[in-house]
Amino acid sequence: MTLQSPINDELAAWDRDCLLHPTTHTAQHARGDVPGRIITGGEGCTIIDRDGNRFLDGFAALYCVNAGYGRSEIADAMNEQAQKLAFFHAFAGHGNEPAIKLARMIMDRAPDHMARVYFGLSGSDANETNVKLIWQYNNLLGRPEKRKIISRWRAYHGSGLVSGSLTGLAAYHARFNLPLDGFLHTHTPHYLRRPDTDMTEADFTNFLITELEAMIEAEGPDTIAAFIGEPIMGTGGILPPPAGYWERVQQVLARHDIALIADEVVTGFGRLGSMFGSDHYGMKPDFMTIAKGLTSAYAPLSGSIISQRIFDVLADGTDQFGALAHGWTYSAHPVSSAAGVATLALVDSMGLVENAAHTGPKLLAALRDAAGDHPNVGEIRGEGLLAAVEFMENPAERQFYDKPMAVSSAISAAMLRHGVIARPMPEGNIIGFAPPLCITEDEINQLAHALHLAIAEVLPR
Amino acid sequence: MTLQSPINDELAAWDRDCLLHPTTHTAQHARGDVPGRIITGGEGCTIIDRDGNRFLDGFAALYCVNAGYGRSEIADAMNEQAQKLAFFHAFAGHGNEPAIKLARMIMDRAPDHMARVYFGLSGSDANETNVKLIWQYNNLLGRPEKRKIISRWRAYHGSGLVSGSLTGLAAYHARFNLPLDGFLHTHTPHYLRRPDTDMTEADFTNFLITELEAMIEAEGPDTIAAFIGEPIMGTGGILPPPAGYWERVQQVLARHDIALIADEVVTGFGRLGSMFGSDHYGMKPDFMTIAKGLTSAYAPLSGSIISQRIFDVLADGTDQFGALAHGWTYSAHPVSSAAGVATLALVDSMGLVENAAHTGPKLLAALRDAAGDHPNVGEIRGEGLLAAVEFMENPAERQFYDKPMAVSSAISAAMLRHGVIARPMPEGNIIGFAPPLCITEDEINQLAHALHLAIAEVLPR
Repeated sequence: MTLQSPINDELAAWDRDCLLHPTTHTAQHARGDVPGRIITGGEGCTIIDRDGNRFLDGFAALYCVNAGYGRSEIADAMNEQAQKLAFFHAFAGHGNEPAIKLARMIMDRAPDHMARVYFGLSGSDANETNVKLIWQYNNLLGRPEKRKIISRWRAYHGSGLVSGSLTGLAAYHARFNLPLDGFLHTHTPHYLRRPDTDMTEADFTNFLITELEAMIEAEGPDTIAAFIGEPIMGTGGILPPPAGYWERVQQVLARHDIALIADEVVTGFGRLGSMFGSDHYGMKPDFMTIAKGLTSAYAPLSGSIISQRIFDVLADGTDQFGALAHGWTYSAHPVSSAAGVATLALVDSMGLVENAAHTGPKLLAALRDAAGDHPNVGEIRGEGLLAAVEFMENPAERQFYDKPMAVSSAISAAMLRHGVIARPMPEGNIIGFAPPLCITEDEINQLAHALHLAIAEVLPR
Repeated sequence: MTLQSPINDELAAWDRDCLLHPTTHTAQHARGDVPGRIITGGEGCTIIDRDGNRFLDGFAALYCVNAGYGRSEIADAMNEQAQKLAFFHAFAGHGNEPAIKLARMIMDRAPDHMARVYFGLSGSDANETNVKLIWQYNNLLGRPEKRKIISRWRAYHGSGLVSGSLTGLAAYHARFNLPLDGFLHTHTPHYLRRPDTDMTEADFTNFLITELEAMIEAEGPDTIAAFIGEPIMGTGGILPPPAGYWERVQQVLARHDIALIADEVVTGFGRLGSMFGSDHYGMKPDFMTIAKGLTSAYAPLSGSIISQRIFDVLADGTDQFGALAHGWTYSAHPVSSAAGVATLALVDSMGLVENAAHTGPKLLAALRDAAGDHPNVGEIRGEGLLAAVEFMENPAERQFYDKPMAVSSAISAAMLRHGVIARPMPEGNIIGFAPPLCITEDEINQLAHALHLAIAEVLPR
């Protein structure tokens, strides 16, 4: 298998000379030190590069191609709409058929207390929308001071200036002057990272709740607008919350009239084996952020689903002040919406939620079989088709590796040589798995086998 | 002509019940007081609603469908890519053919001193990228305090929290807690709005420059990172700058080592009859924001073009600190990029830049013929295929109407009854024109004729 594309052809030269890639070592890329892989095709859970190499994609690109690659049903629906009407805006009540149809499909799937969906392009902009709307809501209620947002360390909520402020990862803050004022972070709800090894899981949940309440009291509940959380943390390391966490958090928020934003960008539309992470963990959010799985990434589309209580205040506000002046040009884009309609239809017809529920435990079991007895494996965890293996210097002493991503990057590179993509997560030494939701048991076994081989190569006993 | 779609069918009910529209009177829409028009097709400069009504679109949706509706060349290119590979990410140096090809096409068209393009989805996120990158740049140069951004009142740079802070329009700030700290606004460069009617245009430019310098001195030049401006203001009212403005602004910025961000979302790819507004006005920016015309809105795509001097520092930074952690999942989206490649090819093959240069003066002349002698018309202005008619209570006394948008909304509604779309701009009483760049002289005459009829109805002499 050829693992490096030829770097001296025209396309690679254009790439080096013209394109600033997202989250890339810019200097190495420009010099051609790390020639980028140019992907040209895909089918099911497999991608193909322009040299014909095939890789089993254990991370669904960036946990987004949930229906798998090469789904002509989605591409056909996009084409039908693009040929008919590629674009008209949705401002001032204008609309288009696929956007309206998709809004209906989303609201049919969302919890009953949710009222409307506002469309954006990315999870980042949807979280900006959430912050804008909760601020507007509190201003309409005459409490302009209620505007701080509490997030958690290791959260990922986007890459913009406000969405990046909600993110709680050092690499996304460093030298970007983030977080901005008024965006706070409480503890990471990951039992492995509890402050005191003697704590039981119940003790740890108590600790998290006590710390959250202390932060709210210290800042003043009247200054806190919302708490934002991924139902299960994603980019921060794929970290399922400790037992009872969301129930207890919601009790605290309710007591202080603080809104809950559930960032469902990764978890929405089946990843955990349930339609939403909120269903999975008994959350009753005021805002749900959706993206990725909404279109399986075939076209850029995100959404903010808002609850009836938020909607009612915002709607009343327009009777008082006129139009709600929040608008992306491409909100409710017809082609992106057509991709969404076709994707959600596939989620149903392919039984992707059910497949995630069915194969998720098999993925976890396969990873445990492949890696569970290795002395540097500290934890194998997951929920549905979202799983991680964390490597540590000495798990028994809870000693983490000093250097983040050193081991995990080596493992990921070794897996790639065995034809499998898995993602080294940005903090710690964690390999993440989030395959397309159409993955089969055979493919799960391939993922696990590649992990097994990679560990043997990188961390020989 | 039926001007209201039936509001009692299923699609309209879903729309009211499920979709939160951008910049819409939410309560009226939810009640069905203002049934939204559902657009189903289009060709050239004309859109068609689901009742079969046809409208000549004098605003190209939101100055974005520059190549016109129904261009199967763009839809076909999107489909070819979507069938082949709808998505893979561009993180860590990964790439896809259309994104690389489009980056090359953009850099071929951008001024020579520009070095790379970073892709986003919307003009708003591209301006966020610009702010993030200038902050990173200044931090890498060891001057973390150099971070404030100067914009102008009446500017439009987006609808997010930071991009909305750059925007200088009251409706986009009100009750959203904007602008955030550190985002400043200097005077609107519109001669009609000079502080003293006795000022000549040259006096007014002197005034603007003196005020800008005073702001920089008051804040401290070491605290100012960048100045952002649309080459010609768009949503603020379509306001060409006074003579000498950009030359003088750039002299001030150069003296204080302040970067220039040219927001070319509206002006990029031909709107003014030149490839970029920067070419048109002799600007040499460090950042150029592009969107809209880049894909003619057939798919969401934006970009930040950065200069060599910015790129070099950012690239060096990655040798020091590792990957530049700024990444939208859908950055360099393959299908959106394919739309961009096909659009820029059409811009060339259809001669859209040349057509804008050729028909722009005819549009202005036609508007002057249609409305120039009306006593409530204060100014008819424009550049290329971007023009505006401003209505005033008493132009001779420079008396504006008290109520913003009252007259302009009535004019726009009357024009719609005559089958033509023109946009009432948000501040003042201004009707904006920004048709597809493929507009013909006959269509220009239709626009002007509808304006003439509308004025006679709304403001009878």
